[in-house]
Amino acid sequence: MADEALFQFLHSEIIQYVNSVESGESENGRCVSKLESMGFRVGQGLIESRHISDCRFTKDTPRFKDELDFMKFICKDFWTSVFKKQIDNLRTNHQGIYVLQDNKFRLLSQLSSGKQYLEHAPKFLAFTCGLVRGALSNLGVKSIVTAEVSVMPACKFQVMIQKM
Amino acid sequence: MADEALFQFLHSEIIQYVNSVESGESENGRCVSKLESMGFRVGQGLIESRHISDCRFTKDTPRFKDELDFMKFICKDFWTSVFKKQIDNLRTNHQGIYVLQDNKFRLLSQLSSGKQYLEHAPKFLAFTCGLVRGALSNLGVKSIVTAEVSVMPACKFQVMIQKM
Repeated sequence: MADEALFQFLHSEIIQYVNSVESGESENGRCVSKLESMGFRVGQGLIESRHISDCRFTKDTPRFKDELDFMKFICKDFWTSVFKKQIDNLRTNHQGIYVLQDNKFRLLSQLSSGKQYLEHAPKFLAFTCGLVRGALSNLGVKSIVTAEVSVMPACKFQVMIQKM
Repeated sequence: MADEALFQFLHSEIIQYVNSVESGESENGRCVSKLESMGFRVGQGLIESRHISDCRFTKDTPRFKDELDFMKFICKDFWTSVFKKQIDNLRTNHQGIYVLQDNKFRLLSQLSSGKQYLEHAPKFLAFTCGLVRGALSNLGVKSIVTAEVSVMPACKFQVMIQKM
C-alpha cells in the first residue's frame, strides 16, 4: 500500500541528508559516490535475500544462460520488485554495453520536470546506479553503471559489463 | 516482493551513515535525533500521500471520532503498510498515554538478540519513533514518541499525546 511512497520518501531523506553532509566537495561528487555505495550494498542485500527465499534466482541455476539473461532479470524481476514497473526498453551493442531506459522513473517524479532541475538529477540516480551494480555483483557480474536524464522523468541507465 | 527487504536494507544504510557522520557527539544523541527527524518527515509524507489517494483517511471524516481511533489507525493500517504486520498490543491509561507493543519488530530483526546489543537499539528505533510522530502530526495530533526494547526483537513504543 504505502510501500512505494515509503521508499520514495526515505530515498529523498537520504539524498537530502547526504547532500547536506557532503556539501562543499567537488560538485556533488562525494554525495553522488556515497549514495552510489549505499545503493550497491542494498542491491547486494536484495539479491542475497532472494537467494535465500527463492533459489530459482541463484546464478548457478540454468535460468541465466548468458549475460543478456542477467540483464533481462534486472529489467523485469528486479526493477519490478523495486520500482513496481519494468524497464521500458533494453538495448545492447552485444559487446557488453546495455542501455536500460525507464520512461517514467519513479525516483525522478518528485523533481519537477524542466531543464532547470537537470543539474540535480545525478543525486536522484546515484542510489539506483549502485543498486544495479550491487545486484549484478551479487549475481557474479562485475559492472560499471552510469545514468543520464534526457527529458524528465525519463532516464537511461548504462551498464558496462566488466569482463574478468 | 522485495519491498520489506528494500526498506530494511535502506534503513540499515541510513543508520550506518548517520552514525558515522554524527559519531563522537553526546552518546549517539545527535544520531538518534537526526534519524527521528527523518522518520518524522517520512511519516508526514506517508499520511499526506494517503490523503490524496484515499480520502477516507483524512482527519475530517467520521472515521476518527476520538484519540483512540487515531491510535488504532496507527496500530493497524499504518503499521501494516510499513511493517507488514499489526501492532500486537495496544494499551492506554486513558489519559493520553498509549503503549504500542510489537513482539517481533522488523527493524530489530537484523540485530542479534541478546543483551549485548541492547545499547544499539535506540538507533534502530529512532526512525520509527519519528515515523509515528510524523504520521500523528499530519493527522492533527501532536505527540511525543519514545521506544524501548525489553527482549529483542520485541519492543514498545510509548506515545504521549500533547493536549492543545
